[in-house]
Amino acid sequence: LDVEVEIISIGNELLIGKTLNSNANWLAKRISSLGLNINRITVVGDDVHRIAAVLKETITRNPKYIITTGGLGPTFDDKTFEGIAKAFDSTLNVDVKAMEMVRRKYYEYAKEMGREKFELTPARIKMAKIPEGSEPLPNPVGTAPAIKLCQRKLTVFALPGVPSEMKAIFEESLTPILKKAAGNLTFYESSLLVTGIMESEMAPFIDEVMHDNPYVYIKSHPMGVERKPQIELHLTTTATNRATVKNRISRALAQLTEIVQTKGGKIIHPNT
Amino acid sequence: LDVEVEIISIGNELLIGKTLNSNANWLAKRISSLGLNINRITVVGDDVHRIAAVLKETITRNPKYIITTGGLGPTFDDKTFEGIAKAFDSTLNVDVKAMEMVRRKYYEYAKEMGREKFELTPARIKMAKIPEGSEPLPNPVGTAPAIKLCQRKLTVFALPGVPSEMKAIFEESLTPILKKAAGNLTFYESSLLVTGIMESEMAPFIDEVMHDNPYVYIKSHPMGVERKPQIELHLTTTATNRATVKNRISRALAQLTEIVQTKGGKIIHPNT
Repeated sequence: LDVEVEIISIGNELLIGKTLNSNANWLAKRISSLGLNINRITVVGDDVHRIAAVLKETITRNPKYIITTGGLGPTFDDKTFEGIAKAFDSTLNVDVKAMEMVRRKYYEYAKEMGREKFELTPARIKMAKIPEGSEPLPNPVGTAPAIKLCQRKLTVFALPGVPSEMKAIFEESLTPILKKAAGNLTFYESSLLVTGIMESEMAPFIDEVMHDNPYVYIKSHPMGVERKPQIELHLTTTATNRATVKNRISRALAQLTEIVQTKGGKIIHPNT
Repeated sequence: LDVEVEIISIGNELLIGKTLNSNANWLAKRISSLGLNINRITVVGDDVHRIAAVLKETITRNPKYIITTGGLGPTFDDKTFEGIAKAFDSTLNVDVKAMEMVRRKYYEYAKEMGREKFELTPARIKMAKIPEGSEPLPNPVGTAPAIKLCQRKLTVFALPGVPSEMKAIFEESLTPILKKAAGNLTFYESSLLVTGIMESEMAPFIDEVMHDNPYVYIKSHPMGVERKPQIELHLTTTATNRATVKNRISRALAQLTEIVQTKGGKIIHPNT
């Protein structure tokens, strides 16, 4: 039933902690809300061999979609296309459509900057050198085109790392495709903030409620410390229609609420 | 030379985008600053098989340290120890030291809450059931002990997912070990904010400077848009003493500064 997605975040800045991986978080939220299931997120540095290795490993897990972010720009350390080509044993070629996308951008930039001409330098042409068989996706807010590469049942999307560009391309080019892939799948979540009961006391009751509501996943997040306990119970479910997911969550919430009250706890901020 | 580390972040909340992976970011920053090298960060859900699979794959890459976060609590979805035991083909046993750590915490909580007694329920005992051969590490701010598991040249640390607990255990138990492992290795970084030059124009000069400074890694981060260009050039290096790393970075910074000025660009905010 599940449509599986994997995210690969590319960039040394993520591995040295210079940059917080907010791209993966944004994608995870958007993709889950579309009803698809994220299986794994992998962060790897700007290295062709490592990018290719991560891609190959990911492919063996048979996700329907792989989405990469980062590494599409004009500098030497932008190595995502090279990594993809290596993983798929293909080559990089200047793509006519991609080249036209890049050319048009620099034409516009030159005009806006009052420059008479612009050059298509190797660094700029590099952004249009895409893996054989892939299709460029327009970048509405930046320069580097993204790509879409289909191979048998797998589709790989490579998006830029600049958040505004990544988001714009996702909404324009990926959302329609992923929505269609999800079909009627709907993801629904809700949570309950519980106080006055320790997480370790709630544990067996969470088990009980999950047992009684087999399609609802409940995760407890301790928000305070054990002695001033405050626990967020976060409920999620996915199903093929909106009524079902809402019903499932309501039933589980009602059961949890009753247990919490019976055990002398309080619900601070229920949001159904 | 490099001492390699891999981070494994465990938790469904990360895969649905409910939680931003600030733990991995914090760890990456701390570990890099200690002079060690992070090779990969993997995010996986609360599933024993998947946790074990990620661990096994990570082990094949031969890092010196694997640090996991998340999944040590009292609830059913805390599956990290089980995943580690599965990956190492070992078993979970109630550890005497770990049990004493847990018992003492609940004794204190009960006292503070004015309760006369407390029970060591299965959910609480679960936190002291650790993989055979591992050693519990005290949790100065929470309940669940972390663990350290050595096997041949590899050391695995499993830390809790609650940020305050993760950080406290890292500083108390991991920092001394990692510092020693890094030896004299020092990581140094600096950056330069450049305006008036497009990233695609800077690209060949970054190549040039990196060629002339083979131990300095330079990464350009576009901060504005190509037509209102603002680029952060981020320089990093690692060496066995502080004078060397500082020298290397200063030389590369000086060369970059000269190029930027020659090409009509401006440096907005140099921080050396």
